[in-house]
Amino acid sequence: MGRPGYTGRLLVDCADRPGIVAAVSGFLFDAGANIVSSHQYSSDPSGGRFFLRTEFFLEEESLAEGLLAEGSIGQARGPAVSSHEVLRAAGAREALRERFQAEVAERFQMDWLIRWWDERRRVAILVSRHDHCLVDLLWRQRRGELDAEVVAVVSNHPDLRGEAEAAGVPFHHVPVLEEGGMMGAEARMLELLAGEVDVVVLARYMQILSGDFLARIGAPVINIHHSFLPAFAGADPYRRAREHGVKLIGATAHYVIEELDAGPIVEQGVERVDHRQSAAELEWVGRDIERIVLARALALHLDDRVIIDGGRTVVF
Amino acid sequence: MGRPGYTGRLLVDCADRPGIVAAVSGFLFDAGANIVSSHQYSSDPSGGRFFLRTEFFLEEESLAEGLLAEGSIGQARGPAVSSHEVLRAAGAREALRERFQAEVAERFQMDWLIRWWDERRRVAILVSRHDHCLVDLLWRQRRGELDAEVVAVVSNHPDLRGEAEAAGVPFHHVPVLEEGGMMGAEARMLELLAGEVDVVVLARYMQILSGDFLARIGAPVINIHHSFLPAFAGADPYRRAREHGVKLIGATAHYVIEELDAGPIVEQGVERVDHRQSAAELEWVGRDIERIVLARALALHLDDRVIIDGGRTVVF
Amino acid sequence: MGRPGYTGRLLVDCADRPGIVAAVSGFLFDAGANIVSSHQYSSDPSGGRFFLRTEFFLEEESLAEGLLAEGSIGQARGPAVSSHEVLRAAGAREALRERFQAEVAERFQMDWLIRWWDERRRVAILVSRHDHCLVDLLWRQRRGELDAEVVAVVSNHPDLRGEAEAAGVPFHHVPVLEEGGMMGAEARMLELLAGEVDVVVLARYMQILSGDFLARIGAPVINIHHSFLPAFAGADPYRRAREHGVKLIGATAHYVIEELDAGPIVEQGVERVDHRQSAAELEWVGRDIERIVLARALALHLDDRVIIDGGRTVVF
Amino acid sequence: MGRPGYTGRLLVDCADRPGIVAAVSGFLFDAGANIVSSHQYSSDPSGGRFFLRTEFFLEEESLAEGLLAEGSIGQARGPAVSSHEVLRAAGAREALRERFQAEVAERFQMDWLIRWWDERRRVAILVSRHDHCLVDLLWRQRRGELDAEVVAVVSNHPDLRGEAEAAGVPFHHVPVLEEGGMMGAEARMLELLAGEVDVVVLARYMQILSGDFLARIGAPVINIHHSFLPAFAGADPYRRAREHGVKLIGATAHYVIEELDAGPIVEQGVERVDHRQSAAELEWVGRDIERIVLARALALHLDDRVIIDGGRTVVF
Repeated sequence: MGRPGYTGRLLVDCADRPGIVAAVSGFLFDAGANIVSSHQYSSDPSGGRFFLRTEFFLEEESLAEGLLAEGSIGQARGPAVSSHEVLRAAGAREALRERFQAEVAERFQMDWLIRWWDERRRVAILVSRHDHCLVDLLWRQRRGELDAEVVAVVSNHPDLRGEAEAAGVPFHHVPVLEEGGMMGAEARMLELLAGEVDVVVLARYMQILSGDFLARIGAPVINIHHSFLPAFAGADPYRRAREHGVKLIGATAHYVIEELDAGPIVEQGVERVDHRQSAAELEWVGRDIERIVLARALALHLDDRVIIDGGRTVVF
Repeated sequence: MGRPGYTGRLLVDCADRPGIVAAVSGFLFDAGANIVSSHQYSSDPSGGRFFLRTEFFLEEESLAEGLLAEGSIGQARGPAVSSHEVLRAAGAREALRERFQAEVAERFQMDWLIRWWDERRRVAILVSRHDHCLVDLLWRQRRGELDAEVVAVVSNHPDLRGEAEAAGVPFHHVPVLEEGGMMGAEARMLELLAGEVDVVVLARYMQILSGDFLARIGAPVINIHHSFLPAFAGADPYRRAREHGVKLIGATAHYVIEELDAGPIVEQGVERVDHRQSAAELEWVGRDIERIVLARALALHLDDRVIIDGGRTVVF
Repeated sequence: MGRPGYTGRLLVDCADRPGIVAAVSGFLFDAGANIVSSHQYSSDPSGGRFFLRTEFFLEEESLAEGLLAEGSIGQARGPAVSSHEVLRAAGAREALRERFQAEVAERFQMDWLIRWWDERRRVAILVSRHDHCLVDLLWRQRRGELDAEVVAVVSNHPDLRGEAEAAGVPFHHVPVLEEGGMMGAEARMLELLAGEVDVVVLARYMQILSGDFLARIGAPVINIHHSFLPAFAGADPYRRAREHGVKLIGATAHYVIEELDAGPIVEQGVERVDHRQSAAELEWVGRDIERIVLARALALHLDDRVIIDGGRTVVF
Repeated sequence: MGRPGYTGRLLVDCADRPGIVAAVSGFLFDAGANIVSSHQYSSDPSGGRFFLRTEFFLEEESLAEGLLAEGSIGQARGPAVSSHEVLRAAGAREALRERFQAEVAERFQMDWLIRWWDERRRVAILVSRHDHCLVDLLWRQRRGELDAEVVAVVSNHPDLRGEAEAAGVPFHHVPVLEEGGMMGAEARMLELLAGEVDVVVLARYMQILSGDFLARIGAPVINIHHSFLPAFAGADPYRRAREHGVKLIGATAHYVIEELDAGPIVEQGVERVDHRQSAAELEWVGRDIERIVLARALALHLDDRVIIDGGRTVVF
């Protein structure tokens, strides 16, 4: 990419009807953006929903000019301000968003968002005593594999404090006390996290969150369940899988809804097993599936590639 | 294998205790057999069950001599009878079995069987209107991939008569009539099949067989279910899988017990799918999984590699 | 889809630059088409190639009106001709194509095509003695799984005539004679097939086709190779895989180019194997992979979902 | 397992001939051992090699008595020494081994070993700059997933010292200096490791070890290669896989021999990929495959489940 510029991504969700792609791509072209990739999906071409994910590249100059032409940020910059600074200013980005809302989104009654390459999200990880998913996510963050910042690890047990702190992430011990119970723990977590995080990951948290907590946390919650859902929902799936004699075991990452183990599935994985493997060995295999499935689900979410379509997901 | 001889296979199922392998392998050594492969499994080394599958090679001469030495078939053969003929005679094989029962099996209270390379089993295939599993099994039989003879195709619809007859297999139309219903159909199938077949395959039969039928058919019944059991047991699994938004779909071959879709699982397979695929396309993918999973399950069964251990299987 | 109409698909391949999507989607919107699904890919956003596959739905009325408005087919239809007939006429479709060429394709120097739902392609299958891929493809055609018509089976051996003719497909025995050799056989096949088929499938043909044949056949040629290419290119891959002790075996469907086993890969599959399996058993497993991989590759090709990008493919 | 006792494992490799299993199982029975699991394999029943892996459970008392009966350790223990102590003494174990050698192994000219449950092996890990496999193995050791002790991490770069030391494992920086080159580095590593380790793991070491080093290190060396060997042997496999347009990428763990990337394969894994993934994203996926394949290969090796049969492995 020879010339300087910025990468953004546009997500759209609206009722399907003709002309959406023409309107969106026309807007981006006028704004000087080159579409790098684009995926769309209609749940039903007549009367269904339309989903779009577009990645675009906008040259530095184009953004500045486009916005100036509209006059929308003219007052905000003096002659000595470089276009680079314009873009970085919240104002410039906000202007592009306002134009999209006015020129395209209103007409089609879209839910939409534009996210720029440097808008990293804040992740909270909730754990219990199992360390495998937490260790894996912290390692991936350190390597730069996740386009996000882990800002908090919260646990009902103190065991994994060392893991979090070694990675430079604040650890919060929020026990489920006899007095107050889970409701008390949820209240404490809401104090810590509500408004402070963009996504919550249950990395084997082993506690059931209430519908009230989910409503108030203000961020999507992704859970890893250690079975190939909907098989073996609930507790102790490896033991039940072994008793059942299944030939493949799996793990499922899903958005959490109030109904237990029932939210929209983001990613799943399976591995072949056989009768020789003890329950402990199935857990060995299972842990490897779990951490990879959870990490991929989180990466897909952070990449804005997961769109919820009723009880299921569309993954672009 | 330079010298002429015979391949047999010995299956053992008994309470686990020390000395079983020593006794079995000592017996085979004395009988002049070379063990080609052997697998064993203990569900629990103290107090569990012991399962063994051994393939052995017996030189022609060894069998004849070994048996003669025991005197057990001395009377049965004249001087002009070759040892080859001896072996082929039911008597010679029977003698080896009697010796095994007397010298080994009684001591350990074994369930066991010896099967010789040329003892092919008789298979009945029950179908409804879906042809994919039937066509596949008939093609495999024709190629010699299945160590069995398909002796009957039975259906509640006449549609697949042509497929069966083109493969030279008798087709029986056993409709589920208003009068008599499923009970009448089962009675007719018992007339046709009981005592005449060694294994029954439900190649998408789409009818529920009663416990009474299963008890009286006198042969194991293998079903293909078009989901990754225990997920989506019951009807219409592809539609439900799609609504659920699962990321992998599968098929399960299992022995049939009275409880629907709940018998011991023999084999399973899965494939990755995504939101773009319609229910029809999932069925496309599903049919491919079904025919391969069913064929493998049947081949494993015919190879005597599947042993039922309570509600699950051990597959050697 | 309440109202009557037609499904088409537009494929585009051109140098990437801004405005392509806007131009294409604007054209389709003006023509009254609703985009059902659309995928695009840029090999490199600056200076790379742009690939697009769009499925659209065009109401009957829209097509007729749109075309009439342009005047392009006014002469071609009398007052009594229904718009349905208009569409079916080659003229109407041609008109839409001409407009696309004039209004969009020329500007971006596109390679492109529009294919309508009812434009089925003609497939020739070349085989040798292995029947598994042929049987599978003929069965899928009969079921309607392939959006194509198999118009010829050609073989250098007479063995599979029965299979072809039972499916109602003409069989041509084109032996490789001592006199003339492969060059003679190719000449005969060119007589039979050139200009008569839209795609050629090598369903284990076991002969090497010359670059001259590939140039003159005038249709893409898809081969199934019984290994996970580029591993074990050339002959006898299962034996070599077994000697090598690989833990997974596979099959590869690829477009044929002059260099042996080296053309762009369309689809691959693998299965886990182990040391217990003989070379014959690996072939058993391999045949199942081969027929599924080949069928999927052909289905993807017929769906226009495979685009060649240099030495590799983009599969939408 | 109600009664106290000891688990051991017997590995046998010899020319195949009748009576081996009878002799081995008879010996174990006489010694009071119960066979927990047993797998055997004959590369060819006439004239091939025979491989056996047996896990057995020996009650405390049986071992002591059996050995005393032989008189072989009578002198070594006073009356006050518990049988537990007897077993732990090298003498008692040695005695059982001597008996096996004298009574069974000599007769069949076996290569064999008996390993007791508590005989943990010493592992050295060689790395370069990539941390994923190292971090994973150290984490698995800490969890107790590996039945071994990592005693050294050696690298030609200093970067991963912190990882090793945080896990309590000595780190040795052995650079490849201009003077001395790889030969000098190998000499230094031989000083550090020869005789001190039981297995060497190349966890993306990125240097080629000489045949001389392999001969003198005195321990098997396991490498992870980041491709589905034999495809893409050599450098930069992900880039080449992407250029080739393969639809699955993989990793291969193998024993190292002098010929590069050509030793017996222990384990392989693959994942589906598509054209949308950049070379960096393929590496993301590849790293996950690599660490799991390498960990499984090492676990199989430590479990004595891998037997080398010429250029390939038998994995029980």
